[in-house]
Amino acid sequence: MPKYADRMKYMEKTADIVSGLFNSMLDAETISFSGGAPAKEALPVDELRQIANDVLRTDGKGVTALQYGKPEGWHEFREVIVQKLLAAKGINATVDNVIITSGGIEPMNLLCQVFIDPGDVILVESPTFVHCVEIFEMFEAKCIAIECDDKGIILADLEEKIKKYSPKIVYVIPTFQNPTGKTLPEDRREAIAKMGGTYDVIILEDDPYCDLRYSGEALLPIKHFDKSGHTVFANSFSKIFSPGSRLGYACANAQIIKKMIDAKTATNSHTSMIPQVLCSEFFKLGYFKDHLKKICEIHKERRDVMIECIDKYFPEGTKRVFPDGGLFTWVELPGDIDTTELLKEASAKKVAYVAGEGFFTEGGGKGKNCMRISFGSQSPQNIRIGIERLGDLIKSKL
Amino acid sequence: MPKYADRMKYMEKTADIVSGLFNSMLDAETISFSGGAPAKEALPVDELRQIANDVLRTDGKGVTALQYGKPEGWHEFREVIVQKLLAAKGINATVDNVIITSGGIEPMNLLCQVFIDPGDVILVESPTFVHCVEIFEMFEAKCIAIECDDKGIILADLEEKIKKYSPKIVYVIPTFQNPTGKTLPEDRREAIAKMGGTYDVIILEDDPYCDLRYSGEALLPIKHFDKSGHTVFANSFSKIFSPGSRLGYACANAQIIKKMIDAKTATNSHTSMIPQVLCSEFFKLGYFKDHLKKICEIHKERRDVMIECIDKYFPEGTKRVFPDGGLFTWVELPGDIDTTELLKEASAKKVAYVAGEGFFTEGGGKGKNCMRISFGSQSPQNIRIGIERLGDLIKSKL
Repeated sequence: MPKYADRMKYMEKTADIVSGLFNSMLDAETISFSGGAPAKEALPVDELRQIANDVLRTDGKGVTALQYGKPEGWHEFREVIVQKLLAAKGINATVDNVIITSGGIEPMNLLCQVFIDPGDVILVESPTFVHCVEIFEMFEAKCIAIECDDKGIILADLEEKIKKYSPKIVYVIPTFQNPTGKTLPEDRREAIAKMGGTYDVIILEDDPYCDLRYSGEALLPIKHFDKSGHTVFANSFSKIFSPGSRLGYACANAQIIKKMIDAKTATNSHTSMIPQVLCSEFFKLGYFKDHLKKICEIHKERRDVMIECIDKYFPEGTKRVFPDGGLFTWVELPGDIDTTELLKEASAKKVAYVAGEGFFTEGGGKGKNCMRISFGSQSPQNIRIGIERLGDLIKSKL
Repeated sequence: MPKYADRMKYMEKTADIVSGLFNSMLDAETISFSGGAPAKEALPVDELRQIANDVLRTDGKGVTALQYGKPEGWHEFREVIVQKLLAAKGINATVDNVIITSGGIEPMNLLCQVFIDPGDVILVESPTFVHCVEIFEMFEAKCIAIECDDKGIILADLEEKIKKYSPKIVYVIPTFQNPTGKTLPEDRREAIAKMGGTYDVIILEDDPYCDLRYSGEALLPIKHFDKSGHTVFANSFSKIFSPGSRLGYACANAQIIKKMIDAKTATNSHTSMIPQVLCSEFFKLGYFKDHLKKICEIHKERRDVMIECIDKYFPEGTKRVFPDGGLFTWVELPGDIDTTELLKEASAKKVAYVAGEGFFTEGGGKGKNCMRISFGSQSPQNIRIGIERLGDLIKSKL
């Protein structure tokens, strides 16, 4: 075979981690807290059957749903995003500021196409979402970690590293962060938006969990505070509508969006029209409000049970994040437990989580005693069983 | 703004051409022969409404359709492809040889991720599909044209250029080629497959039109003759099912597929599950056979009317291809007409085609007097009106 491109070697390690994530998510016998899937009870199956029945007609939007669309996405769907989602988040935008993507991680891929040459630096949180690190590494970017405290990015460290490394992009998950569940306060958001303009660096704000809030007050996104046009807001319909539909979007200044459209065209032409039309109708018919209420209730219960069980079954000295929303909590174990090693035994006992180490780009064994635990896809009953099982295993190692 | 990545400059010219293609396709007032869209009458809207009604149920495949899938695609859909499509084309494969992609051009993107470093050579037909050249240029590949005769690639020139340039990939559209409508004979297919192994070069066989045959005998694909595992067969559901669904696939040796799965994961996780489930059921329920018959009849009529009208309305000395299938014919005009210039006047007269020059990577004014004319998306009546209009315009220039 001809030699693989350099990027394949560069991304190899993270590709293995992410591949494991996808595989663990689909093993039906295991109580898996590893994937970031929402509850299956939170999928609007019945609503979509009804919508499909109404729109898939030759005298309706059926031809639109099946014929070629445009690389930037369906105009009506972009309008829905501008009017029903961005406005509610305090982001002023027009359709020219929006590109529809095939799921919530494609914006990272497209933005790398636009900005990243091999060797360029991307600053990421410590820890950060390993799947996006895989993307950044596919572009042979150098990922450098920003120090975080219990609220997220430490501004002084961010500013120092921007000055030191002249990054092209700063990648931030501000709300119910993946993997930690932490939320960045509004004053830090505003400061980060400002740094984008001051230092001419793209702030890539990845905010797929923000609508899944179960406690505390909603915060304005970084993009709200962006005066210079350096913030790119990425979001997803995976958690609030359906992961399998693969719908996401980016909102940015029109000049960046235009370049992302070129990259999108050269990636896969455009996002599938069927899910765009179905999702668009879902919002236009006003289903979203009640649906969001329902899915927040489902996930809030799971979070509460998860936290209760960790506190009950995990050993003394365990630290865990209480997330105000989203799908994850982050656990730091006492003693000298290596969670990567432990995962093999956990898998044998049919319970799974994601080992913490893979979320730290800086390496050096950081996060070795940590785990990301997702409470989204397991029933409260399974959470009780799985966390007790996991707690017993951990205790047996101390 | 931070500096764009080098690739954006490199792909700029082709990006403009392709962007024009997508825009021309959607102007409702123009009789457009530019896009590669199939007839809207050939879209299975009613069948999909019925299927959606059956599968979008919480006790059925509704949860599968809306929940996360796997980067390689839905297992059942990959089986459909192996059993109902590849086998019929003379390609022996298992699901491990198949990756589902978001439309028929994503395989080119993923294969570039796997193999192409900046400066690597890709050999392409002269002329070739400009949209894929845009992809290759996004990866900063150097595209070099292989000489073609009226049947496609000239083997001696291909072999000479493989030896001279050591390309990573040879990109071929063997059946009803885009843009010319030509079909490569079976003996050349076999020889090209063999060269893949002899010279350790990937043969990328892009065959989205092969099922749309209106005359002549079906030919075996290059992949059928591939003994060494160097041929990657790419295909699409855009022409035989629905372009807007964005479904395609690649079939290759399992080692290459595994790398493509990593690239897919770092592009957009996986292809949308809703269209995968709908399309899979469409094939499993046996709709495809009658559907293919119907769409071939629709497009055959359009081809016949198109060729009849070109012969009638275009000036003496015009050369055109009689395509045995697909969606395109290729016209070479007499005299000194620049089809890029002419397009402005044609657009003003509300008729459109694609100027030939953009399909030639070698430049130098090649194809300046040529045009790609698609007969897929216009009714026979519109074809008559549009081709007469275009013929009159051309004659006025001589």
